[in-house]
Amino acid sequence: MFGARFLARALRSCSSAPCPGHRPPARLSVRDALGAQSTSGERVKVQGWIRSVRSQKEVLFLHINDGSSLESLQVVADSSFDNRELAFGSSVEVQGQLVKSPSKKQNMELKAEKIEVVGNCDATAFPFKYKERHPLEYLRQYPHLRCRTNALGSILRVRSEATAAIHSFFKDNGFVHIHTPIITSNDCEGAGELFQVEPSSKIKMPEENFFNVPAFLTVSGQLHLEVMSGAFTQVFTFGPTFRAENSQSRRHLAEFYMVEAEISFVESLQDLMQVMEGLFKTATMMVLSNCPEDVELCHKFIAPGQKERLEHMLKNNFLIISYTEAVEILKQSSQNFTFTPEWGVDLHTEHEKYLVKHCGNIPVFVINYPLALKPFYMRDNEDGPQHTVAAVDLLVPGVGELFGGSLREERYHFLEQRLARSGLTETYQWYLDLRRFGSVPHGGFGMGFERYLQCILGIDNIKDVIPFPRFTHSCIL
Amino acid sequence: MFGARFLARALRSCSSAPCPGHRPPARLSVRDALGAQSTSGERVKVQGWIRSVRSQKEVLFLHINDGSSLESLQVVADSSFDNRELAFGSSVEVQGQLVKSPSKKQNMELKAEKIEVVGNCDATAFPFKYKERHPLEYLRQYPHLRCRTNALGSILRVRSEATAAIHSFFKDNGFVHIHTPIITSNDCEGAGELFQVEPSSKIKMPEENFFNVPAFLTVSGQLHLEVMSGAFTQVFTFGPTFRAENSQSRRHLAEFYMVEAEISFVESLQDLMQVMEGLFKTATMMVLSNCPEDVELCHKFIAPGQKERLEHMLKNNFLIISYTEAVEILKQSSQNFTFTPEWGVDLHTEHEKYLVKHCGNIPVFVINYPLALKPFYMRDNEDGPQHTVAAVDLLVPGVGELFGGSLREERYHFLEQRLARSGLTETYQWYLDLRRFGSVPHGGFGMGFERYLQCILGIDNIKDVIPFPRFTHSCIL
Repeated sequence: MFGARFLARALRSCSSAPCPGHRPPARLSVRDALGAQSTSGERVKVQGWIRSVRSQKEVLFLHINDGSSLESLQVVADSSFDNRELAFGSSVEVQGQLVKSPSKKQNMELKAEKIEVVGNCDATAFPFKYKERHPLEYLRQYPHLRCRTNALGSILRVRSEATAAIHSFFKDNGFVHIHTPIITSNDCEGAGELFQVEPSSKIKMPEENFFNVPAFLTVSGQLHLEVMSGAFTQVFTFGPTFRAENSQSRRHLAEFYMVEAEISFVESLQDLMQVMEGLFKTATMMVLSNCPEDVELCHKFIAPGQKERLEHMLKNNFLIISYTEAVEILKQSSQNFTFTPEWGVDLHTEHEKYLVKHCGNIPVFVINYPLALKPFYMRDNEDGPQHTVAAVDLLVPGVGELFGGSLREERYHFLEQRLARSGLTETYQWYLDLRRFGSVPHGGFGMGFERYLQCILGIDNIKDVIPFPRFTHSCIL
Repeated sequence: MFGARFLARALRSCSSAPCPGHRPPARLSVRDALGAQSTSGERVKVQGWIRSVRSQKEVLFLHINDGSSLESLQVVADSSFDNRELAFGSSVEVQGQLVKSPSKKQNMELKAEKIEVVGNCDATAFPFKYKERHPLEYLRQYPHLRCRTNALGSILRVRSEATAAIHSFFKDNGFVHIHTPIITSNDCEGAGELFQVEPSSKIKMPEENFFNVPAFLTVSGQLHLEVMSGAFTQVFTFGPTFRAENSQSRRHLAEFYMVEAEISFVESLQDLMQVMEGLFKTATMMVLSNCPEDVELCHKFIAPGQKERLEHMLKNNFLIISYTEAVEILKQSSQNFTFTPEWGVDLHTEHEKYLVKHCGNIPVFVINYPLALKPFYMRDNEDGPQHTVAAVDLLVPGVGELFGGSLREERYHFLEQRLARSGLTETYQWYLDLRRFGSVPHGGFGMGFERYLQCILGIDNIKDVIPFPRFTHSCIL
């Protein structure tokens, strides 16, 4: 429903406003009805779906939900209103008076004067049953209906709030938002399987590519953000990224969202880590304050103990260890790893989990990785004998790697050599150009948005924190 | 640069904060420096790129831009600082005192005590020249550098502000934000060429599709939003959409952004049009108030007269005519159209332009289109003899169609018949499900984001309002 402010504005500005003669009842969202401070005695109209029906001798109780909040609005009606169509899942419109509720369970309730069933619900075919709590795995079978459950409703409202919180964090700190391209002719990481894009009908252009060059779905907006940080100093993007990996894990999707930032005139990993930690903590505090009930539902029913784990992350300063230290810690551990930890080899999930636990379940930045493990654009630390680059990963409890970032190689000749060694000089001539014309030290990072949601809510499977998950063998709807 | 508020917060919360012993000069963005209210005498540090150098006998003037605003900061230095590296396009760091400027041209200026060249600019190779105003068409050749010009800088800052304004319009009015999927197994419109998606390496799965079914890039998030409006009542999405059309026009891209909304319990096109008009006007007013200089640059140098045209759109109520009336107007016109206007045939761009002009260059909603022209999901008006559906397009000056929307067919049996007639019943079983379980009248719309930017800024070519345009034969970077 529109807030009063919007309606007033819209009616003022729009040619299509009806003449206000006799006043129809004001349309209220369930959220606004529940939060109403006074009962002016005015008639209101609430629309939504029936979440419960309780019929007593003389009174009928309905709970109406419209997705504006986890909580439903209690409707109290004379039992004469009762009819078989008033069933779980049906949509209704209720008119009546909003009154203070005598019960402590809710602030307000609606005394019904008129109840109209808008659309029936075929209860035998409807996959969700009244009063049953269905496991997330069961809900996953119904991607077109699961958002109507309490659990997915709460998760997706949190997702919406987190999206807004992330945008506002960057806006408040002077970042310019950039839509980096989805279809791209370059492969940022050189790692990970790509999706290729072609017109589905090849009739018109049988011989050539639509774009003249092979085109792929983006795996990261970083290189494009670097272009933009050379003009706007601080930029961010928040959009879909893709990996064609044949993985069925709880941590991977073929299509997922990334928050990426790039900052010019940044000379140390410290500066980058400050922004990462600031982003994580600020966004999370905003989510906790804007939809506490939705977060609480997850913490209470889906991930017991998560509330305390999250508070522990928020109140502590994140830790910093070097990759070399991390390998030492792993080597000294008594744990039997499937992959033996060794300097020069990538950290595996089992290692990341161990490190976070070792750090007391406080998020930990691991910095300065072996040069040989990392892509060409990361800044050479010029150290030795163990040659590293200024890369940083943030590991968090439960999820493992949440952020990845680095300083970028801004020195023309260093970059030129790295590119030449990989035979990429020609492809990345434009990227070298950025270092020919007013190059500046800079760096950036990316955060997996679904993993962020998993981390704050304690949701085990990544498929439950995205509206329509895409992965190998599955692209439903 | 980070605002003081952020820095304070970050330093408090981050383990990596340095001990504050002797205070380094505060780092300020050009925007913050220009807007400073008082001169506390403190030393500050400003970083950016040189936009102009003027060397006088005893004084050296530099203009420094960091993309935080269109306006540059004037740096005043002793001529002894002059050196050949201080050239157009170089990056610099300047330390000094911020003082009130004696000139009326700016509020503050920076009295330099230290100037350090961070990165040189190879002036002979740099495609932009000092003091030259390059046409947008010329800039398009340099997608990795054009954001450093005033014109593209302003356009992309406006794009960023407009993005934020749209998000905040929906948030303020209680909409839940949804990330509708990019890769999808269904084709919403049945019209328009699709891009198909496959892993680039077919080694692992030679026989089958990655997703088991053919998968495409989305042309609209509407159907997925309808799923969500059945739970959250009011939802919106703002993301990339794709058309594989072989078009080189000034109005089409292969990858573009759409703002889409879907609203439950909406029973008339009036209600939808209110939201569309509200979105257009509210977002535009926010953009105008948040980045007036950037908008002014476009209105002054790129599209003279656009300021007045936009004001005319904002101060007038949008008009409404029916498709049938529109065809009558076109038929009665003395203009020679390439396509003869006729009831039952789609409106062409030339028709749309004529209609807007006919309406006094006020945006005009055209409603109730022939059923035969529109996709299966649009609501049947059950009228006759000319059978129409409750569809609406908004036509605006200069651009033509900006919004498209409709009421959706919420009646199970109507929809079932339409699907059956198109042989789509099986494919859209899930969509029919939405009408089996608590169906509600609802409707929604989509707005082309780039066209919106073209409309408010008066930018002729759509390729100039998106950071990295993708179209036939072109996918640079």
